[in-house]
Amino acid sequence: MNKQFLLAARPQGMVKDTDFDFRGMSVPTITEGQILIKNEYISLDPAMRGWMNEGTTYIKGVEIGEVMRALGVGVVIESKNEKFKVGDAVSGLTGVQLYTITDGNGWFKIDTNAFPMSWYVGVLGMSGFTAYFGLLDKGLPKPGETILVSAAAGMVGSLVGQIGKIKGCKVIGIAGGSEKCKMVLDEFGFDDVIDYKATTNMGKSIREKAPNGIDIYFDNVGGDILDAALLNLARGARVVICGAISQYNDYTFMGLKNYMKILTARGTMTGLVVLDYYPRAGEALKDMGAWLNQGKIKYKEHMISGIENFPSALRMLFTGENKGKLLLKIS
Amino acid sequence: MNKQFLLAARPQGMVKDTDFDFRGMSVPTITEGQILIKNEYISLDPAMRGWMNEGTTYIKGVEIGEVMRALGVGVVIESKNEKFKVGDAVSGLTGVQLYTITDGNGWFKIDTNAFPMSWYVGVLGMSGFTAYFGLLDKGLPKPGETILVSAAAGMVGSLVGQIGKIKGCKVIGIAGGSEKCKMVLDEFGFDDVIDYKATTNMGKSIREKAPNGIDIYFDNVGGDILDAALLNLARGARVVICGAISQYNDYTFMGLKNYMKILTARGTMTGLVVLDYYPRAGEALKDMGAWLNQGKIKYKEHMISGIENFPSALRMLFTGENKGKLLLKIS
Repeated sequence: MNKQFLLAARPQGMVKDTDFDFRGMSVPTITEGQILIKNEYISLDPAMRGWMNEGTTYIKGVEIGEVMRALGVGVVIESKNEKFKVGDAVSGLTGVQLYTITDGNGWFKIDTNAFPMSWYVGVLGMSGFTAYFGLLDKGLPKPGETILVSAAAGMVGSLVGQIGKIKGCKVIGIAGGSEKCKMVLDEFGFDDVIDYKATTNMGKSIREKAPNGIDIYFDNVGGDILDAALLNLARGARVVICGAISQYNDYTFMGLKNYMKILTARGTMTGLVVLDYYPRAGEALKDMGAWLNQGKIKYKEHMISGIENFPSALRMLFTGENKGKLLLKIS
Repeated sequence: MNKQFLLAARPQGMVKDTDFDFRGMSVPTITEGQILIKNEYISLDPAMRGWMNEGTTYIKGVEIGEVMRALGVGVVIESKNEKFKVGDAVSGLTGVQLYTITDGNGWFKIDTNAFPMSWYVGVLGMSGFTAYFGLLDKGLPKPGETILVSAAAGMVGSLVGQIGKIKGCKVIGIAGGSEKCKMVLDEFGFDDVIDYKATTNMGKSIREKAPNGIDIYFDNVGGDILDAALLNLARGARVVICGAISQYNDYTFMGLKNYMKILTARGTMTGLVVLDYYPRAGEALKDMGAWLNQGKIKYKEHMISGIENFPSALRMLFTGENKGKLLLKIS
């Protein structure tokens, strides 16, 4: 039997259990060219909230009645495709379900001898690629520059900071609450941190930590924190928009007031769509793998077990309850 | 006797006569290394409004009691500097006054045999450089691409459109009122135009004119029109922020709501500070001069006579009364 979560309704604000249908069905037989994958782990990502909306942003939204989109990893248990054999560990768009049938297009094999399988939905998956390509390919860090990262205790943010340190930059994180701020400094090795929950004037707090301004702002949250960061751009700054988690469930955003600072700082603002970088995944896997082996990158998982817990686990991303990469062990 | 406008107060909202002191004084004697310039024309630019504010944006604001900053052209009438001789026509930061004394730093000689002297405060001055470097160096147009330009009947906008046509692009303008829209099409040769005063849904109007989206948006106005343009970015679009004339006298801007479209379109947003390009002025003078001689660029002046009319002339920029490059003949 397969079990799957289908999108049942377009969420208004925060995701609810009733936005999904959870149903069982028998596993169909595969046809020529296809493979059957038994899924092991799926990644829970803020991007999922956007995929539940109608219409096309950087990719098409999930249709009502369609299996909820998810990236995951699993093992090939049946194959009528010569590129994959039974027992191969693979990564791709599993969807939120126990079994996936695919023609293998867009899937790639993963090396579970080198690293645990679950890492390929996190530090060696979308989160890792986002941090790696977002910082290196869009942010273009130079040694000695100052990087500001929001959601710094989060999966992408913590990796951006650590990669920034490897590249010789000064790294300042923004996180919420003393526990997360401590983690940013002690576990992830940032140079400094700002607790946004303890700050009444974010623009001033950033200025105190970075009196010469920010060369790269890596934005995972959007909204007012982005606006405050714009006030503190150094000349030639690069703003990398990676996400806007503060806005995903909230349509009352008043808008970015300080965008003219991009002009006065001779800066640029650009966005990262990590799916565009999948053809270059090998570069990230090679470097990130080496840094993990050298102990230069610390990685922490927050694993929830049981596919039935998908909706509540997804909500944890938006309430900030997770500590480390949130993923679902589904088998 | 010299006559000069000094900044007397920081304007709140629209510029008032009382924001300036107009005073007469004798012309000081020049010392070794200096030149005395009799000013002929000064340029009236939206940027002046920003220079009247306190603090530093892309350059320092004018101090209270200081001569109002202006770019202009004039003739050297006394010289104790070997680089300039009496009779040279020169361009630089004249300020709003009849005579300027300078060490010549940042000034350059202009060729008044090739073109009328007044053109060097417009199409061959800051406005021309803004259009030239903003479109070519920041916008990076490729033949066949679609360019959207706001304030298209204005000095910079009309030049951007004409340069865009020279570069083989489809050019759509945004202007206010049927008279300006006609000018954009008939005089400046844009492919299409949107009358923002006749439109209730700017996002939709842009989509109708550019169903495949905008490759370059050259923004001279900011605010809601910029927000509407963001909704219509084509993949890989470049947004060039040149000015925000709609915002200069208005601090109630609600902010840019659609900035996430920069991400979903894999676009970039960047700003142009034309003063940064003055070391490369020769490139613009060469190309723009050739295009003017070939009749590929049409240029129209709106000249106001008499230095005493400076404040009212400046206000015309913000009410949109001027037709063509607004400049002040001061001698």
